[in-house]
Amino acid sequence: MVKMKFNPYNKEIEVSQGDNLLEAVRKAGIFMDTPCNGSGACGKCKVKVISGNVISTNSRHITDEQKKSGYVLACQSIIEGNAVIEIPETESSSMHGMKIEDFSSRREKDIFQRSKEQILKSGMKFDTYVKKEYLELDPPTLDDNISDFERLKRHIKKQLNYNNVFCRLPILRKIPKLLREANFKITITHIPRGKGKTTIINIEKGDKTKELYGVAVDIGTTSVAACLVDLYNGELIAKASSGNAQIKYGADVINRIMYSTKGNGLEELNHAVIQETINPLLNKMYMDSNINKDQVVSFIVAGNTTMSHLFLGIYSNFIRMEPFIPAFVKAPFIKASELNIEVNPETFIYLAPSVASYVGGDISSGVLSSGMWNSEENILFIDLGTNGEIVFGNSEYLMTCACSAGPAFEGGEISCGMRASAGAIEKVRIDGNHEPTISVIGQEQPLGICGSGIIDLICEMMFTGIIDRRGKIIKDLNTNRIRFDEHGIGEYILSFKEQYDLDRDISITEVDIDNFIRAKAAIYSGITTLLNNLAMDFTAIDKIYIAGGIGNSLDIGNAVKIGMLPDIEQSKIHYIGNSSLMGCYLTLMSEDARHKLEEIANSMTYVELSVESQYMDEFVSACFLPHTDIDKFPTVKECLNKSV
Amino acid sequence: MVKMKFNPYNKEIEVSQGDNLLEAVRKAGIFMDTPCNGSGACGKCKVKVISGNVISTNSRHITDEQKKSGYVLACQSIIEGNAVIEIPETESSSMHGMKIEDFSSRREKDIFQRSKEQILKSGMKFDTYVKKEYLELDPPTLDDNISDFERLKRHIKKQLNYNNVFCRLPILRKIPKLLREANFKITITHIPRGKGKTTIINIEKGDKTKELYGVAVDIGTTSVAACLVDLYNGELIAKASSGNAQIKYGADVINRIMYSTKGNGLEELNHAVIQETINPLLNKMYMDSNINKDQVVSFIVAGNTTMSHLFLGIYSNFIRMEPFIPAFVKAPFIKASELNIEVNPETFIYLAPSVASYVGGDISSGVLSSGMWNSEENILFIDLGTNGEIVFGNSEYLMTCACSAGPAFEGGEISCGMRASAGAIEKVRIDGNHEPTISVIGQEQPLGICGSGIIDLICEMMFTGIIDRRGKIIKDLNTNRIRFDEHGIGEYILSFKEQYDLDRDISITEVDIDNFIRAKAAIYSGITTLLNNLAMDFTAIDKIYIAGGIGNSLDIGNAVKIGMLPDIEQSKIHYIGNSSLMGCYLTLMSEDARHKLEEIANSMTYVELSVESQYMDEFVSACFLPHTDIDKFPTVKECLNKSV
Repeated sequence: MVKMKFNPYNKEIEVSQGDNLLEAVRKAGIFMDTPCNGSGACGKCKVKVISGNVISTNSRHITDEQKKSGYVLACQSIIEGNAVIEIPETESSSMHGMKIEDFSSRREKDIFQRSKEQILKSGMKFDTYVKKEYLELDPPTLDDNISDFERLKRHIKKQLNYNNVFCRLPILRKIPKLLREANFKITITHIPRGKGKTTIINIEKGDKTKELYGVAVDIGTTSVAACLVDLYNGELIAKASSGNAQIKYGADVINRIMYSTKGNGLEELNHAVIQETINPLLNKMYMDSNINKDQVVSFIVAGNTTMSHLFLGIYSNFIRMEPFIPAFVKAPFIKASELNIEVNPETFIYLAPSVASYVGGDISSGVLSSGMWNSEENILFIDLGTNGEIVFGNSEYLMTCACSAGPAFEGGEISCGMRASAGAIEKVRIDGNHEPTISVIGQEQPLGICGSGIIDLICEMMFTGIIDRRGKIIKDLNTNRIRFDEHGIGEYILSFKEQYDLDRDISITEVDIDNFIRAKAAIYSGITTLLNNLAMDFTAIDKIYIAGGIGNSLDIGNAVKIGMLPDIEQSKIHYIGNSSLMGCYLTLMSEDARHKLEEIANSMTYVELSVESQYMDEFVSACFLPHTDIDKFPTVKECLNKSV
Repeated sequence: MVKMKFNPYNKEIEVSQGDNLLEAVRKAGIFMDTPCNGSGACGKCKVKVISGNVISTNSRHITDEQKKSGYVLACQSIIEGNAVIEIPETESSSMHGMKIEDFSSRREKDIFQRSKEQILKSGMKFDTYVKKEYLELDPPTLDDNISDFERLKRHIKKQLNYNNVFCRLPILRKIPKLLREANFKITITHIPRGKGKTTIINIEKGDKTKELYGVAVDIGTTSVAACLVDLYNGELIAKASSGNAQIKYGADVINRIMYSTKGNGLEELNHAVIQETINPLLNKMYMDSNINKDQVVSFIVAGNTTMSHLFLGIYSNFIRMEPFIPAFVKAPFIKASELNIEVNPETFIYLAPSVASYVGGDISSGVLSSGMWNSEENILFIDLGTNGEIVFGNSEYLMTCACSAGPAFEGGEISCGMRASAGAIEKVRIDGNHEPTISVIGQEQPLGICGSGIIDLICEMMFTGIIDRRGKIIKDLNTNRIRFDEHGIGEYILSFKEQYDLDRDISITEVDIDNFIRAKAAIYSGITTLLNNLAMDFTAIDKIYIAGGIGNSLDIGNAVKIGMLPDIEQSKIHYIGNSSLMGCYLTLMSEDARHKLEEIANSMTYVELSVESQYMDEFVSACFLPHTDIDKFPTVKECLNKSV
């Protein structure tokens, strides 16, 4: 056994000689964001060997200078003896950090407001499926000596007209003592199930009818967002988001699934999303709002199909293997205690239903909140998270498909990429001298660049002649912001490390640009193929809704200019934020919305792009800025002509 | 801290100076049967101090000779320093020992057969509520790519006509891998719930339709009995019984309830009955029959109201406090995994419904198996377990009451008492020279005396002039079997220790006789009061059924002679064995029987004897052999006159 010490965490563990260094870091309980899951491709597990013996393979991510200072990729290193390792505080750690969001953002408020109105306009009622009632029971006597539970049932039948009242063992266990401590004046929390049936899920002393809370959670592959809602009046109490702690096991769903099939991988992924991500978010919101978790009795969660499987701890390997079969699309009844989620243990966990292996409950939920199911216009809904899902339709029909866009829109597989949280460069402009102006979320020191920033950056680089339409950096430009490594791979530096006292420059490489072009091409070709499938073209689109974690600052014009979105009138394109979370909020607040959500999931027609021969051709043609066929982008063509 | 070592268990623990020795024995995990729960009354916690310093109070249970040898009552001893203690192997340990029962007993077989016939005669069907079905699903393809769970539901709908199929998370977790390992040929275990609904509780590879098992358990205060049943053909596979490990916390329900209110008492009692009693019985039956616990998917349990509460871990203190209110009479839905019972974790635990605080599910179940609910004759049903419950009625009405008879019928509070298991003296005859002849269960060495033996013994002592009608031993009889202690308390020795190489003689004291007389008086006065309540007398009784743990060898004539049962024609009185377990077996095998069981519990009218002024008078009059008014027992009077 050899001893490993990790700074600045001051953690020491024993490992065996010959063990992998990244495994040791994980064993020590230290979070590292490793999108490529240890293949050496992403270069994000850079650590510094302070002392001791570690043998590493060379990597293009480690410069000669860094190598001399002791930097290695943890995943490419073998432990040979006792060592002290320093883990740099990178954007990854802060990426995982939690963030309690500010509701003052006008855009955020607008989005909530519009979604609520959609629901109300469609005639749905705001009416939660969990109810509270205050009851004053008659105390028992020798002449009226029925059991406590029968007494409770008798009263509920008389006062609330439910003939069949159920509860589970933990509630029954509370009844005898609590009834007497409360002097037989109690509040029950219950879930009516129609036809005179109801199930009691909580019992409290005195009148607590106004203390009724719910939580909505969107589990993204990269980011997880949650909000705590006062079910009594529908108000949002707190909202929080963080990175999905599963990131350390892989950046995208395929890598996660692969990890889940190894050893305890499935348990580790389930633990990462619940214990390391959702529960900390919940506890932060409870602390900030001074709410007791036992009063949180409704829980709605949405995620893509793989996230849904991992959330429930369900083997998901058949999702990635032809014929791509999920274990379920609609989850069974689950109690919070079964998943160790920190709400009232009897709370029913409602998971938004999926459509297929690559169109999940987050899309059903997003479509619900978009209101497109109630629209006469043809709406194109695009969720730009990790991967990209597309839905097209109106109140008559809904067609959907998934594009393997990868995690680039949320900063994944981009060397300086990060999700749209504090410190992310969200807007970029470049002037004629190739000098950039940046705008950073939270107006903090820049740590990396998020999806909206990358779109801006690539677009500006194209229009200022830094890159060509293949995304290759032009040589011999007169600027110190461009450099080429020994392999000839070009890089544009957005922020010099000296300027912001960073470990390294914030830059974009040709490899990054290539990754991003493939992501945007996947979206564009998905849209084209889906419409073709319906024998339609872009003229059929009345509106485009963009949802997802790409960032509030998305410049829609630039997204069109790089060829991610079709070149239609820009006033028709709207960013609608985290529509999945919004759909969960609506489902919390309205039983009608929940029924609609199920109807939406059931009614969507799924198109499997991987078996559409046209899709590959479309994709290859779209791997250009904006497209190999510039005539498909007339306004962009015009601009390019102007700028030349 | 001081060190305690316990032989022959070779267990060592650390305790504090001043701790109680009985507590230390329990802390070391050693089972001791202590019916009086540490009051010093029962004398059953006798231990020998081999070395070390223990201070004890004197006790009438320790002779001078024993005191010299180091014997003390653990409950009356304080630890002063390190010590080595020897725990004698008494009948208590063997009492708790498990016993796989022999079905060859003709009486046992007859009882089962008669109960089955009762059910069939009444028009009920044998049809278990848990079903198995073998299914061959179509494997998924790209064109038929619905999720695994939807595929299963689609097939069930088509083949079995259930429109709504449910399952819980653990089953969903099994589905994806198991379906493929089984090549989509599986057996489901499910519970139909009417109206096209069913819930899957197990899924197995291949055709397992014939492997379907259930368990019935009767939880008595003193004894627990279980049987393992092949639900496919209704056959009994194994039967086992043992003492209830809760005995160490008190002999009767009142002592158990009191213990349950202290510290972790409730958890300890719940652990004792499930982990230390029921699970060992189950595992023994599985081992003997080579059955896998995962195939045990039905579980019916009956017990008195307190046992039902403790089995579910529910606070039961209000049962013993006026107005005597149980927390529940009908338990909610419970999964085996919630109680850690060793059957398939998804198995639904069905607890026979109680009637009131002192008439439990064991009585509902017993009445079911007795068939009295379907009788035109008036039947008196008496359960002689710990306490005694009485039901009177026919197909038109059922009246019930509970008598606080204590544990004497199962050997509790009798110095040499034990339950009716191997080694118990079950029959006694005494000749004119006051010399006894005994018959021992299992034809083994006698270890103690069970209920039927005590009845015989007291009856024979009365008729051979050893005791008077108050139960006092006649002085100056010419026999070495009678002795008096320093307090003048008489004792009759049934088996000398030298004859059987025992630690002590097996005897009955005047204190024991007094305890037993009070127990039988409680039953007799209960019967009288119940009938009076209906303005009836013994002439209204067409049949008496005796159920319970008193022992298969109960001599009904002797039970009448001591005044426990009314003096009616003896051919009308039948011993029906463990009717509670039998009722559970019927409930396992027939859904109709389960509905009938609920109907019985609902329809029984409970009479609270403690508020009937007449009851106390009746009780006092019955505290004689057979009764203060001998004219109530004409045939006994005749015999007594003859024998004088």
